[in-house]
Amino acid sequence: MRIDLNSDLGESFGRYTLGNDAAVLERVSSANIACGFHAGDPVVMQKTVGLCRASGVRVGAHPGFPDLMGFGRRSMSLSFDEAKAYVLCQLGALDAFCRAQGVRMQHVKPHGALYNMAAKDESLSRAICEAVRDFDRELIVLGLANSALVKTAKDLGLRVASEVFADRAYEPDGSLVARSKPGAMITDEDEALRRVIRMVTEHRVSAVTGEDIEIVPDSICVHGDGEKALLFVQRIRDALAADGIELAPLDAIV
Amino acid sequence: MRIDLNSDLGESFGRYTLGNDAAVLERVSSANIACGFHAGDPVVMQKTVGLCRASGVRVGAHPGFPDLMGFGRRSMSLSFDEAKAYVLCQLGALDAFCRAQGVRMQHVKPHGALYNMAAKDESLSRAICEAVRDFDRELIVLGLANSALVKTAKDLGLRVASEVFADRAYEPDGSLVARSKPGAMITDEDEALRRVIRMVTEHRVSAVTGEDIEIVPDSICVHGDGEKALLFVQRIRDALAADGIELAPLDAIV
Amino acid sequence: MRIDLNSDLGESFGRYTLGNDAAVLERVSSANIACGFHAGDPVVMQKTVGLCRASGVRVGAHPGFPDLMGFGRRSMSLSFDEAKAYVLCQLGALDAFCRAQGVRMQHVKPHGALYNMAAKDESLSRAICEAVRDFDRELIVLGLANSALVKTAKDLGLRVASEVFADRAYEPDGSLVARSKPGAMITDEDEALRRVIRMVTEHRVSAVTGEDIEIVPDSICVHGDGEKALLFVQRIRDALAADGIELAPLDAIV
Amino acid sequence: MRIDLNSDLGESFGRYTLGNDAAVLERVSSANIACGFHAGDPVVMQKTVGLCRASGVRVGAHPGFPDLMGFGRRSMSLSFDEAKAYVLCQLGALDAFCRAQGVRMQHVKPHGALYNMAAKDESLSRAICEAVRDFDRELIVLGLANSALVKTAKDLGLRVASEVFADRAYEPDGSLVARSKPGAMITDEDEALRRVIRMVTEHRVSAVTGEDIEIVPDSICVHGDGEKALLFVQRIRDALAADGIELAPLDAIV
Repeated sequence: MRIDLNSDLGESFGRYTLGNDAAVLERVSSANIACGFHAGDPVVMQKTVGLCRASGVRVGAHPGFPDLMGFGRRSMSLSFDEAKAYVLCQLGALDAFCRAQGVRMQHVKPHGALYNMAAKDESLSRAICEAVRDFDRELIVLGLANSALVKTAKDLGLRVASEVFADRAYEPDGSLVARSKPGAMITDEDEALRRVIRMVTEHRVSAVTGEDIEIVPDSICVHGDGEKALLFVQRIRDALAADGIELAPLDAIV
Repeated sequence: MRIDLNSDLGESFGRYTLGNDAAVLERVSSANIACGFHAGDPVVMQKTVGLCRASGVRVGAHPGFPDLMGFGRRSMSLSFDEAKAYVLCQLGALDAFCRAQGVRMQHVKPHGALYNMAAKDESLSRAICEAVRDFDRELIVLGLANSALVKTAKDLGLRVASEVFADRAYEPDGSLVARSKPGAMITDEDEALRRVIRMVTEHRVSAVTGEDIEIVPDSICVHGDGEKALLFVQRIRDALAADGIELAPLDAIV
Repeated sequence: MRIDLNSDLGESFGRYTLGNDAAVLERVSSANIACGFHAGDPVVMQKTVGLCRASGVRVGAHPGFPDLMGFGRRSMSLSFDEAKAYVLCQLGALDAFCRAQGVRMQHVKPHGALYNMAAKDESLSRAICEAVRDFDRELIVLGLANSALVKTAKDLGLRVASEVFADRAYEPDGSLVARSKPGAMITDEDEALRRVIRMVTEHRVSAVTGEDIEIVPDSICVHGDGEKALLFVQRIRDALAADGIELAPLDAIV
Repeated sequence: MRIDLNSDLGESFGRYTLGNDAAVLERVSSANIACGFHAGDPVVMQKTVGLCRASGVRVGAHPGFPDLMGFGRRSMSLSFDEAKAYVLCQLGALDAFCRAQGVRMQHVKPHGALYNMAAKDESLSRAICEAVRDFDRELIVLGLANSALVKTAKDLGLRVASEVFADRAYEPDGSLVARSKPGAMITDEDEALRRVIRMVTEHRVSAVTGEDIEIVPDSICVHGDGEKALLFVQRIRDALAADGIELAPLDAIV
């Protein structure tokens, strides 16, 4: 039994530093690297791809909305052509640094509001998936388990991976409970840990309504902002190891 | 005897339209497409690569400074790493649209202030050329004849092409007379025409000081902004044809 | 009886020119000047305020979303604090050029998607109106007749003006028929002319459903992009004059 | 005897936090607030002006080049009109938040490369000073002691203040030794402290060449990035107090 751990990386910009990329790289198997639209800049991309290469962590593109001021977290209404072109542009930008350093890009995971909107919007999902398909059919689309993005990627015949969150509650349809609703976050670390291990081993999770739903994760999304977050990643790693579950990058799983 | 005609394309941005790309595409063999830093956006790039594909005009990247407000025409002091990463990023961005449409990128020509600075600055030239080399060794670097950029590209073992201007005067060292100096522009169209044909056929041009200098063009840079500019391109084409000089894209020449 | 004619101005950016500001300035009494977020740049703002000053046309701020690539026409989900701060920032930016040239700013009209969203969203309207109030209580808020923005501005005790469109159909509640719906545009110029004159003189318009609704305009929004649009503005001016309706800027009306 | 302490503030942007503004505000009398071109955004400006208001620290505008990616630290070649309009725009943007919160702006200090270039470039200095003059004649221009900016502001009849650096070496002409040269930084804190006290009390400093030069400071520029920097500010404050020199904002000095 194998699972991937993924985290967002390369979110610094110019003089601004964000996150603790070095510490995260010691703990994950796949990195989602910002491509300059919502975060990241060319110098940061160059450096981050190099860090991934040095540590053996797989590189993924993390395209977002063109909104640095909002860190790509604000919904924007893009046309199909705009969304597709914006994703293509970001794939190419990051891939340039991969090519320059002899790294093969593994996956694509949309960021922030683009991720959230694509989880429910089939047209937006299709724009993203067509960009991936037109750029490189071998790339893996990494999306929320049970989301429109995952379904669309499958429909287009692309390689797909599903991710789950240890610290988020799920609706009965498998979508995430909106952060604005009560109970959206699993704040008890022990419970979060039990839930994520159960998702990996039993493919089940208890929805916010109490009923059990099916969920089949290829990857667990983890965060590296702050000491507490890093310690929790370590706890996940330890719990997975204790259950005999091996860490592996996405391209070894899907 | 063969020569390439190149022109800048894809300089529109969002709601803003610039140039007459359709008319230019009927008259040139190579296009320099803006990559989103000084002009162009992902939708424009997608469309412009498609227009080049449809008309058989070769695609080149036209990277510039990150200065949309100044259209990349203002000098900026970048570090070596910044310059290299900025060019890499732009190569990748444009290439994404080439890959998506089955087009092979032919060349790279820096834009505006980046072009002018690189013509004299060996370190900046090296940053640009290393970006090209790391991205794709087969790409042709298109620069000002006799410039530092051309010399550096040769030193790095890259494919190189030299361009000349019909409407610009030259210094004895082969550099362009700065626009701020008297006599910088060749305003008489007949004279401009005679000069460019002589450069192509005799590899000589009369410098602003009166002496003859050597200049070996692979390409002539032409402009498509306005009816007059387009008519002058047609005159160049006619004059070349009258002298039995064939138009050919750069990759058939260098 | 008096009415204002308003139009968007100063939408150029850097090397990109948009619209025919000189021609529009001869035909309107109030100008909505882009403030650098969705269009316009400092040099353009300086120049446009100067043109308004020279022609006696009143200056208004035209704040929009921070989305130059989408020309502020794409919906964005901003928080209340973001929306308020973005409007304040744009008011200040444009006002700097007014102060420098001894011009008093007359009004504020949101642009594009910000305008459309504020027409229906009370919280967003309140953010805009609080920005206006905090900046200068004397400024007139110019909004769609019967919109949430107009109501909110009144509730806050601000000076308010309502604008109507000659070429747009209305829903029974006084809102504009969405452009995506059939019948949204009044394409027959004669009909558009009759409708706008009737709105000004009778304060009535026939909704898309056929029923008559009340609408009380202080201003008519006109466009200057293209010869046809300019001719239509002239027809509106002539029709108003024929009915004895005088053109006057907003601050002479509200 | 009185002196001002000034520091850069409000340099965060969107999700990116920079500096320790709360700690700095406890130690300085004047703050230079980023205006959105090289750093800062409208929400940050709103918040920073509020923090200054609450702590009684005077607000100054800190206009920079339009280069967020380079933090305004890279030279750019602007025309006179561009430079003047860019400064005007930034003064207006920040002033909007001052007006909204009942704060009177005290001064203007250019940032980064704009500061360094203006220190030597009379035309650029004049563009900045004309922007200040056209916006508000009462604003104080804060520049490097003995610089072109200070001289130009005086020539234009503006209120002017000169600042000095504790940790920088000076050329015999009163300019700063370029950071790229040996000896540019005064790394010994005790020496830096002695130098700055001598500048304030004796109006003299030893240039890098060994000779004594005249320097008349109205303000000392201090930094708040890091615990060490904050401690050094405290040492300066203590040393000033020990010498009976009172801290006072610029508008109480010039």
